[in-house]
Amino acid sequence: MKRVYNFSAGPAVLPEAVLQQAANEMLSYGNSGMSVMEMSHRSKEFQSIIDQAEADLRTLLAIPENYKVLFLQGGATLQFSMVPLNLFQNKEVDFIHTGAWTEKAMEEASRYGKVNVIASSEDRSFTYIPNLDELSFSKDADYVHICQNNTIYGTRFTSLPDTKGKILVSDMSSNILSEPIDVEKFGLIFAGAQKNIGPAGTTIVIIRDDLITKNYLEHTPLMLQYKLHADKGSMYNTPPTYGIYICGLVFKHLLATGGIPAMYERNLKKAALLYDYLDSSNLFHGTVQKADRSLMNVTFKTDSEDLDKQFVTLAKEKGLVNLKGHRSVGGMRASIYNAMPYEGVMALVEFMKEFEREHLS
Amino acid sequence: MKRVYNFSAGPAVLPEAVLQQAANEMLSYGNSGMSVMEMSHRSKEFQSIIDQAEADLRTLLAIPENYKVLFLQGGATLQFSMVPLNLFQNKEVDFIHTGAWTEKAMEEASRYGKVNVIASSEDRSFTYIPNLDELSFSKDADYVHICQNNTIYGTRFTSLPDTKGKILVSDMSSNILSEPIDVEKFGLIFAGAQKNIGPAGTTIVIIRDDLITKNYLEHTPLMLQYKLHADKGSMYNTPPTYGIYICGLVFKHLLATGGIPAMYERNLKKAALLYDYLDSSNLFHGTVQKADRSLMNVTFKTDSEDLDKQFVTLAKEKGLVNLKGHRSVGGMRASIYNAMPYEGVMALVEFMKEFEREHLS
Repeated sequence: MKRVYNFSAGPAVLPEAVLQQAANEMLSYGNSGMSVMEMSHRSKEFQSIIDQAEADLRTLLAIPENYKVLFLQGGATLQFSMVPLNLFQNKEVDFIHTGAWTEKAMEEASRYGKVNVIASSEDRSFTYIPNLDELSFSKDADYVHICQNNTIYGTRFTSLPDTKGKILVSDMSSNILSEPIDVEKFGLIFAGAQKNIGPAGTTIVIIRDDLITKNYLEHTPLMLQYKLHADKGSMYNTPPTYGIYICGLVFKHLLATGGIPAMYERNLKKAALLYDYLDSSNLFHGTVQKADRSLMNVTFKTDSEDLDKQFVTLAKEKGLVNLKGHRSVGGMRASIYNAMPYEGVMALVEFMKEFEREHLS
Repeated sequence: MKRVYNFSAGPAVLPEAVLQQAANEMLSYGNSGMSVMEMSHRSKEFQSIIDQAEADLRTLLAIPENYKVLFLQGGATLQFSMVPLNLFQNKEVDFIHTGAWTEKAMEEASRYGKVNVIASSEDRSFTYIPNLDELSFSKDADYVHICQNNTIYGTRFTSLPDTKGKILVSDMSSNILSEPIDVEKFGLIFAGAQKNIGPAGTTIVIIRDDLITKNYLEHTPLMLQYKLHADKGSMYNTPPTYGIYICGLVFKHLLATGGIPAMYERNLKKAALLYDYLDSSNLFHGTVQKADRSLMNVTFKTDSEDLDKQFVTLAKEKGLVNLKGHRSVGGMRASIYNAMPYEGVMALVEFMKEFEREHLS
């Protein structure tokens, strides 16, 4: 079976070389005589898999020593609970509201404390990132929460707010490993694996060690305490071992292909190819303010819902799949994560040109 | 690389046919042109995978219609929080204490309410199951919690307590799918996947629908509410899609090989082979009261720690791996879950006989 170009927003395309290696090792990892799936998490073999995965992630992102890397479960959604449960002291948080993911995080945080929306792009359907130069932070806010790339609307923070020393928490589920970041600017970074990292069911948390305390809210369930996971090297209980193994393969693959700087170059090139075409097209147009366009999730439309529908259907027949936009936005969305090859974006643009020719003639 | 006989207590051996199929489908599932790992959880393909997995589990266990099946994350350990958070009304629970797993569950439940130990086998190092005929339940207990098979000590409930109408909650992490059960006897069943079901990171919950309410404790995090997961068909957020797919393959494999009755027969036969030898051996002896011996985790010792060590080391060289007992018990433990073939137990017994001959002569 020929592989398709999969533009899914997540779970999403993974590097073919990684999948091939996983297939090859499925019945026996190295000389172990067993699948990684069958391996005790307390075995030397698995300890070395998780240690190597962490080491490679540290190399990729230049994570300073005073940050812990945790491999958790529950996705970004569980982090919407864990972050306030563990970081609330004054029980107050400032949010920059950029769409569905900050909405959900705010709903959950507001169950444990006070939520301040210090900026929002809701007035124009989240098609831009609010001006970060005019923010005023709340005196008692324990931290500032942002979602750095919005998968649904296709927006991206191209710079970070100066939080004047307040802890910055970033949901990087859909941009992690796609561009260089300075980890020291953040108190806590979290990301569901299923876009740029690996299979759904593994969540990465990068947390500055002074934030790992016993000062979580009294009723915080055991498994939601960062301190427990940090103290136990992410193995208080059985972690999602196979998922962590695949994440490790993705990290290795990324290192072998030039790391983040090279990946960022490729991502810029892929996004430029698509956005440049969109800007020149008489049929399709991008839906996001140019300065804030995502490198990962490219949202676009024609002026006709019928044409949008036709486009998605015909594209699928050409092996360009999962191009339908999120139901709350409509139109199309091409998610072009790290593992989407340049050829995939080229094929998409070629098909868009063909579709345009046919429907504007 | 030749596959070993893997006696790990979990993550544990999986059916070779399942691993082979997973390897074959790694780069393209069916005609999809993508791995299940790359598949949107909102796609028709994945919906059909999770629906089929649920349907097959329902067939295997004859789960009545008034029970919901949930595919969650976080392992049994997260259930130690979720069960009291969702089931506490009077905030009181009765436990039958049979070792480390009920200990941990009690510790967590006691953070939200009152824990009564109504029976315990702690007096003899958890080497037996307490007498279930003499239990007296607490008037205000919301439910009774048991762990039906203890992986560490190697004990097993061969019958269930008559809870006089009180809700029975069972941790079946290490015995689910190994023997027939009557789901109607339980209010809630939970099991981490990584013994008899699939990869670590997926947790199965089977819950009677009248227990799925909004009456969870006020501070229960969103992702820990059964109602949310039940209302959203386990897809409020991205579930561990690949893990669920592997669980589904295991269910299909089990159905194709005779279902639970046939598996139970095979398990009885495997366990009998090992226990019969233990009872006849002059070197090795079982560590659990005969009537309460586990079919899944067979614990045994020689009278010498040195010999135990030697045995584990030599066995490994023969491709019989992960036979070391849990550090809190010592000695040996052979976990012979569903996917351990009869030939594996035969090979183990043959090697034990050989070892015995050499060390008793």
